[in-house]
Amino acid sequence: MRPNIKNIAVLTSGGDAPGMNACIRAVIRTGIYNGINMFGVMQGYQGLITNNIIPMDARSVSNIIHLGGTILKTARCLEFKTKEGMQQAYDNLQARDIDALVVIGGDGTFTGAQRFSKEFGVKVIGVPGTIDNDLYGSDFTLGYDTAMNTVIEAIDKIRDTADAHDRLFFIEVMGRDSGCIALRSAVATGAEAVLLPEKQTSLDELITQLESGASTKKTSSIVIVSEGHKAGGAYDIANRVKERFNHYDTKVTILGHLQRGGSPSSFDRILGSRLGFAAVNELLKGNTEQMVGLRGNDVKTTSLDEALNKHSFKLEADLLEMAKVLSI
Amino acid sequence: MRPNIKNIAVLTSGGDAPGMNACIRAVIRTGIYNGINMFGVMQGYQGLITNNIIPMDARSVSNIIHLGGTILKTARCLEFKTKEGMQQAYDNLQARDIDALVVIGGDGTFTGAQRFSKEFGVKVIGVPGTIDNDLYGSDFTLGYDTAMNTVIEAIDKIRDTADAHDRLFFIEVMGRDSGCIALRSAVATGAEAVLLPEKQTSLDELITQLESGASTKKTSSIVIVSEGHKAGGAYDIANRVKERFNHYDTKVTILGHLQRGGSPSSFDRILGSRLGFAAVNELLKGNTEQMVGLRGNDVKTTSLDEALNKHSFKLEADLLEMAKVLSI
Amino acid sequence: MRPNIKNIAVLTSGGDAPGMNACIRAVIRTGIYNGINMFGVMQGYQGLITNNIIPMDARSVSNIIHLGGTILKTARCLEFKTKEGMQQAYDNLQARDIDALVVIGGDGTFTGAQRFSKEFGVKVIGVPGTIDNDLYGSDFTLGYDTAMNTVIEAIDKIRDTADAHDRLFFIEVMGRDSGCIALRSAVATGAEAVLLPEKQTSLDELITQLESGASTKKTSSIVIVSEGHKAGGAYDIANRVKERFNHYDTKVTILGHLQRGGSPSSFDRILGSRLGFAAVNELLKGNTEQMVGLRGNDVKTTSLDEALNKHSFKLEADLLEMAKVLSI
Amino acid sequence: MRPNIKNIAVLTSGGDAPGMNACIRAVIRTGIYNGINMFGVMQGYQGLITNNIIPMDARSVSNIIHLGGTILKTARCLEFKTKEGMQQAYDNLQARDIDALVVIGGDGTFTGAQRFSKEFGVKVIGVPGTIDNDLYGSDFTLGYDTAMNTVIEAIDKIRDTADAHDRLFFIEVMGRDSGCIALRSAVATGAEAVLLPEKQTSLDELITQLESGASTKKTSSIVIVSEGHKAGGAYDIANRVKERFNHYDTKVTILGHLQRGGSPSSFDRILGSRLGFAAVNELLKGNTEQMVGLRGNDVKTTSLDEALNKHSFKLEADLLEMAKVLSI
Repeated sequence: MRPNIKNIAVLTSGGDAPGMNACIRAVIRTGIYNGINMFGVMQGYQGLITNNIIPMDARSVSNIIHLGGTILKTARCLEFKTKEGMQQAYDNLQARDIDALVVIGGDGTFTGAQRFSKEFGVKVIGVPGTIDNDLYGSDFTLGYDTAMNTVIEAIDKIRDTADAHDRLFFIEVMGRDSGCIALRSAVATGAEAVLLPEKQTSLDELITQLESGASTKKTSSIVIVSEGHKAGGAYDIANRVKERFNHYDTKVTILGHLQRGGSPSSFDRILGSRLGFAAVNELLKGNTEQMVGLRGNDVKTTSLDEALNKHSFKLEADLLEMAKVLSI
Repeated sequence: MRPNIKNIAVLTSGGDAPGMNACIRAVIRTGIYNGINMFGVMQGYQGLITNNIIPMDARSVSNIIHLGGTILKTARCLEFKTKEGMQQAYDNLQARDIDALVVIGGDGTFTGAQRFSKEFGVKVIGVPGTIDNDLYGSDFTLGYDTAMNTVIEAIDKIRDTADAHDRLFFIEVMGRDSGCIALRSAVATGAEAVLLPEKQTSLDELITQLESGASTKKTSSIVIVSEGHKAGGAYDIANRVKERFNHYDTKVTILGHLQRGGSPSSFDRILGSRLGFAAVNELLKGNTEQMVGLRGNDVKTTSLDEALNKHSFKLEADLLEMAKVLSI
Repeated sequence: MRPNIKNIAVLTSGGDAPGMNACIRAVIRTGIYNGINMFGVMQGYQGLITNNIIPMDARSVSNIIHLGGTILKTARCLEFKTKEGMQQAYDNLQARDIDALVVIGGDGTFTGAQRFSKEFGVKVIGVPGTIDNDLYGSDFTLGYDTAMNTVIEAIDKIRDTADAHDRLFFIEVMGRDSGCIALRSAVATGAEAVLLPEKQTSLDELITQLESGASTKKTSSIVIVSEGHKAGGAYDIANRVKERFNHYDTKVTILGHLQRGGSPSSFDRILGSRLGFAAVNELLKGNTEQMVGLRGNDVKTTSLDEALNKHSFKLEADLLEMAKVLSI
Repeated sequence: MRPNIKNIAVLTSGGDAPGMNACIRAVIRTGIYNGINMFGVMQGYQGLITNNIIPMDARSVSNIIHLGGTILKTARCLEFKTKEGMQQAYDNLQARDIDALVVIGGDGTFTGAQRFSKEFGVKVIGVPGTIDNDLYGSDFTLGYDTAMNTVIEAIDKIRDTADAHDRLFFIEVMGRDSGCIALRSAVATGAEAVLLPEKQTSLDELITQLESGASTKKTSSIVIVSEGHKAGGAYDIANRVKERFNHYDTKVTILGHLQRGGSPSSFDRILGSRLGFAAVNELLKGNTEQMVGLRGNDVKTTSLDEALNKHSFKLEADLLEMAKVLSI
């Protein structure tokens, strides 16, 4: 088969996520295997503009499948939103005969890619890479599974510490707009309560919930707080609970960026490999402006248009209901 | 809604798998929440016969969601295959007014459950729990994800050791009839070769594959051997390779039962919770002889008939092909 | 040898620490082995007063060596500081013919034990159990090694995330009065700066240090903040750095109580076993008011008097100097 | 102070061990800090002969402190035992004005270093780096603590699997001549029996021991086998037990090289840093033919002569006795 493209470059953009390296490896090697010249772009769209574009061969991605982060680095880049920035990026690609791009990231990344395709004709395929699992078109995004494991290991450790009826642990997890990590980690750890960005929970409701737990002889209480929850961060909420109920001893943990790191789980390595492999195969077939994603156990494509328009995480209502039943 | 059943018991049978405790917890609490009296059966079908059946409440499954193994233990039980054994089991259930059973295990477990339902009218729902991921009707079985993470962490550590062109590591993983763990762990770790039960690989082929890797400057070689591979265990294969090529230094690791243990991953905890929750809800609806499973991101039912008849793991040909491309 | 004591009880007090269960197991089994009746006291000194004292045999400590936390629970107990409280505790012990006590905890725990011995003649041996490693008479306290591993795994994950010259990570670790965790974790992770309770570091100094790192092309900066540092918690410091240098993007992680949990490391399990074993052997020899501790690779005793009087963690000046050299 | 040496090179030799990278980093940076030109030698003594010697600066050891293995690789090298080999090595060092060497490894490594110093006048300092912990002059060798944690995590997972009175798990750990890993991991996991190279245990004794455990209601049995045990590997022993007692179901795990890998523990990172720092400081003072080691909480030197002559691991008799008491 005569490939429909000449050279391919790959970049990672937005917040990094475990599994990105597995995906980069798959992109590079699938391209090489098919006789394409492959390039890596450093620091996302910024590297396109600053011409930080490096030729890569099969060995340049050896021994990276198990590493957290991204060897290509990532950066947020305002300049790529301008006409001039895009033109510069295009010129740099042209100079190397690169006519196709695999972009790994979230919806901001895809928005840029789509414009770049429409305005300059560079073929683009998107790979959903974000720990927030908030993209349409893929059951799971790259990095989410690893982040979940990191979160539950942390919470398990907090559970270990000596129980006391009057002690409350507040644990803040990532998810500015999406409570996916918070809700699922509450299910996976049997947390007593969870505060989500998608759902208003008043202090009264929270306290009622915790006290009903106390009455059924729960020996300790863990509250998971999504960083995007309206009532404020875990610290603020812990303080307000303490103010009203000074018999509670409240303790706070903020997981922060450690949720982004760590060696990718098996799930994320396989997902990254499959999506990277599929992304290049889509380009080889001449496709563009698509996102590759996991549906069930299969890799499927969704147009970037659809992915971006339908993007808006729906809280998993069935899980929320189940969480309530299982935390009795 | 008036439930269609009186009391429910839950048991785990066959090889244990991480996530079984999360599932037991979900079964018990979902039943309690719906006003059902709940029971746990110790040591699988054997406990049914020996009358080792324990009333359980919401607190009896506290603080187990993160534990490996199964608090109900498991055992293989030949006696349950006899008419007398089943009769005894039935009598013991009758004495407690238990008319429904959730069984967590593999196909042997389901075969027993189905006969029990057909011959004695006890309602049964099966939950796929086995690290082998070889059941029809669920994209993933309980325990598989955790086992995969255990395997790749072990292989990552072996990768760490000093590289040398003439050193081969053979790592034996579980899967007597199914190469699912072997194939996917090869993908997830970038192993140089994999020997599967479903696919004959001659010693010549293996060596050719390894030598082509050497020629492309791979700095170390890892061969994953499924315990069911026809050529024998990892030791035998390592010895035969060494005999023919005495310049190779071969090292062997047998992971064995450590693949069954460990705190369940987030994926397995959520899967176990969802399947346990669903299993009881199926019984509440009056259903029987069904398996609950994960398809995509949804829980779906499959009849035990279908699950048992279509059970025969098909090697994931697309992953096998991809593994070849990505290990260049 | 005729033992000098009749029955022995063991308790854990103060903040819990990984390895306490290994120690409890060793205490119980060493006593049983020597023909002593053994008891466990729940929730530290409080259980002595409320008479929550349980007979224990060899099997009651099965399968706990690997568990975090303490099966005996712990609690802070003001009442034990009163004459009446101690009398009540003594009466409860008398009722069971318990004349000796192993107490696992920190200096507060030892102070209580010593008074109890002096005023009521109960024989006491102390085991240093606290993650802070701030006791005189033992190179390492129980739980410290595990806590250190927890901290460095967290920091390693933060290191994974995409590097940027203008990003600073502030990580708050435990140690209200002792910078031992902070200093050693800075060494073990190659952190760019560390703020200790024992050492005033001005904001100016901190920023100078970070900027010199930037000039030598460090690709990311991690600052470890001991919770006891005078300038305030990690949040406050991060905010003040950001105020002065708005080109810095600051991110905060508060590890909190997760540092207390987790399965104990091999080091802590062996230490706990050895100290528990030694504690009972000291009692069998008729000794009292001693602390057992690790010096080099040997278990040695220190009088509680000396342990309490010399207790005041000296910052390890050689490590501090070394940290400076190694972070160039 | 005017340093007594010109340029320093560092190498790792023999089996690799976690913490070697932390040590390399400390050696390089301590040298740079003191104004010395620093070099890394690839693949141990072999790189000295093949002239694979690389100038290193402070940045060349960035971000390696947490990595398993050794960035300098290691190899066994017969040629360095010859006069010609040493001469070639010496010439290569001379060409770069390197007059001092830090060697990280075990007794084979030190023997070579000592001869090199005596015959060619190159100043040498040894750092004890081996997971076997079998060197005189250091309470702990680099890598041992990490290996121990790897071993106990594996055994913990095996413990998780369903218990049965008639099931025996045999786990083979490293230690050809030294039972240090085997004995200490038996203590740390509460194994039912341990077979050591230093101590003959007959099959009869083993079985007696296991059966007495069974009679006291132990629910599962784990036997740790040191690879150097006279009765043969774990497989052979498991088979012989099974032959005689066919009611036992025996399962085997061979940990193999995974014990060498993994991110170093906090203990090993700090130990590696301290020893590397000390090694260079010894050279700066003009010292040679010394090993730096940990005694208690201090770094002390031992002459290579003494280290090599007194090298012969004495089984820790007190731990062996304690293990017996604690496994009742």
